[in-house]
Amino acid sequence: MTRTVTLCEVGPRDGLQMARGRMATGTKLRWIGQLAAAGLKEIEVGSFVSPRAIPQMADTGEVVRGALAIKGLTVCALACNLKGAIAAHEAGAHVLAIPISVSDTHSHANVNKGTDAQVEMVRSIVDWVRAQPRPMRIDAATATAFGCSMEGDVPLDRVVQVAAALAATGVDRIALADTVGYAHPALVRDTVRAVQDAIGDRLHKLHLHDTLGLGLANALAGLEQGIREFDSCLAGLGGCPFAPGASGNIVTEDLAFMLESMGHRTGIDLPALLAARALLRESLPDEPMRSGVAAAGIPRTFHPAALAA
Amino acid sequence: MTRTVTLCEVGPRDGLQMARGRMATGTKLRWIGQLAAAGLKEIEVGSFVSPRAIPQMADTGEVVRGALAIKGLTVCALACNLKGAIAAHEAGAHVLAIPISVSDTHSHANVNKGTDAQVEMVRSIVDWVRAQPRPMRIDAATATAFGCSMEGDVPLDRVVQVAAALAATGVDRIALADTVGYAHPALVRDTVRAVQDAIGDRLHKLHLHDTLGLGLANALAGLEQGIREFDSCLAGLGGCPFAPGASGNIVTEDLAFMLESMGHRTGIDLPALLAARALLRESLPDEPMRSGVAAAGIPRTFHPAALAA
Repeated sequence: MTRTVTLCEVGPRDGLQMARGRMATGTKLRWIGQLAAAGLKEIEVGSFVSPRAIPQMADTGEVVRGALAIKGLTVCALACNLKGAIAAHEAGAHVLAIPISVSDTHSHANVNKGTDAQVEMVRSIVDWVRAQPRPMRIDAATATAFGCSMEGDVPLDRVVQVAAALAATGVDRIALADTVGYAHPALVRDTVRAVQDAIGDRLHKLHLHDTLGLGLANALAGLEQGIREFDSCLAGLGGCPFAPGASGNIVTEDLAFMLESMGHRTGIDLPALLAARALLRESLPDEPMRSGVAAAGIPRTFHPAALAA
Repeated sequence: MTRTVTLCEVGPRDGLQMARGRMATGTKLRWIGQLAAAGLKEIEVGSFVSPRAIPQMADTGEVVRGALAIKGLTVCALACNLKGAIAAHEAGAHVLAIPISVSDTHSHANVNKGTDAQVEMVRSIVDWVRAQPRPMRIDAATATAFGCSMEGDVPLDRVVQVAAALAATGVDRIALADTVGYAHPALVRDTVRAVQDAIGDRLHKLHLHDTLGLGLANALAGLEQGIREFDSCLAGLGGCPFAPGASGNIVTEDLAFMLESMGHRTGIDLPALLAARALLRESLPDEPMRSGVAAAGIPRTFHPAALAA
């Protein structure tokens, strides 16, 4: 059975925000162009956050405007407050991503506000966006939904409660984010099921990290529960500046390989995707780059779903 | 639901056979002792193969005899022919592992014989072992069951045929081995199901490599089909000298973390297992060592299955 699975590439945002080096604006746009040309239809190109906190994202407005020129690409930008949301809207982003930590401690560390206050903040963003003449899709993400490096376990009931509260604000869609990478397949299964029971297909996406080596196993568990969208990052870059111990996102190349091998259409051209690693390596020579498929090469037994139909 | 899952540590065999350096016999035995003390109940301690081909395994007889002194440990040794099987039996191994390539090309490259001739060879080993006064369990493994770096796709029908032929020789149990690491979760699911249909629970184990980053996702797929035994290797060492492109085995630490987190009892003490990495690092300083759990540390959200009961 061939189905469509969408990968949202978060490399230009989650991947670069923790990078030791800075990628120049023009390089970001060339890289985003290569990623889009390799078949990625949705790319989180940056975040509208304090340039003092995350200087790598200072040029996000320019990056959004540049990315809008790429035909067929859904341009996503992250913001953590109304000011950032307004900036994203003014720049013309198609999608606004808003992360809300289910862990109060992580939320305070990240944005100096607790979870419930953040949900209210999301409501104010929704109200503002809906009042504008140009529509912008609003995706909320429940950060630390599978555990927190500061608080430890995050109760499932609380995840469901926050997801339901976010749904009630009127956002378009909700993702579950394993911000620090503590999820395991049984927890993914149980959490996805419980949140689906509460908000149905408003739950659309998983954002997974590969901290403990379980990233693709967790993606598989989500896939088996009906999830058809995943965030991922070329070469598995990424992390969270406020979540000590968090390491890279799940690897776009390996996830695409897994999904296509299993008969799910991603629209991704794997050789073209692998070629987009070169610019990353050149621009950020000190950044660790992961990927089993890149290291071993695409095996001769690979049959993309696109060709199997 | 808490179930028991058995990990067979193949580090001293599959992990060391490709290592750049040589681990001394005494060090091997200290390492095997640490692995057993960490809760691994079955360890493949070496192989009875030509010391010219694989000099790292030249001391396997001594290692088997030393490992037999470890209380409660099931000592497994690999052999590829009757001569090796006799040596394993003479050394006192509890279990003999015999790999048979489903890919004829890989089989010829590995042992200079085709697959069907190898199945006949297994029959001669079974006949010899069964005639001895001391019993020895015989586990056959279908190597390259999920694809071959030389032949490419390995037809599922052929995998089933070889597994059934091996079962008919009278071996005790049969494992499916992803020798080069080309499997993906849908292929694992389909292959396990088809082989279970043919030989039932004589199919007992998966031997997986992490070549393309899919190792734990493949283990999850096997687990979901009822597989309760897995080969794995501390730090993900290992490979196959005759399968170019093959990289390390799935990582024992990360697999044990995943299984215990999911509520499956492995009997493994994760901190003790991580401590057994030190001797490996000291003995083989140039060997790449992997593990998400070792890199990030055991997260505070970890609840071993043993404590959950």
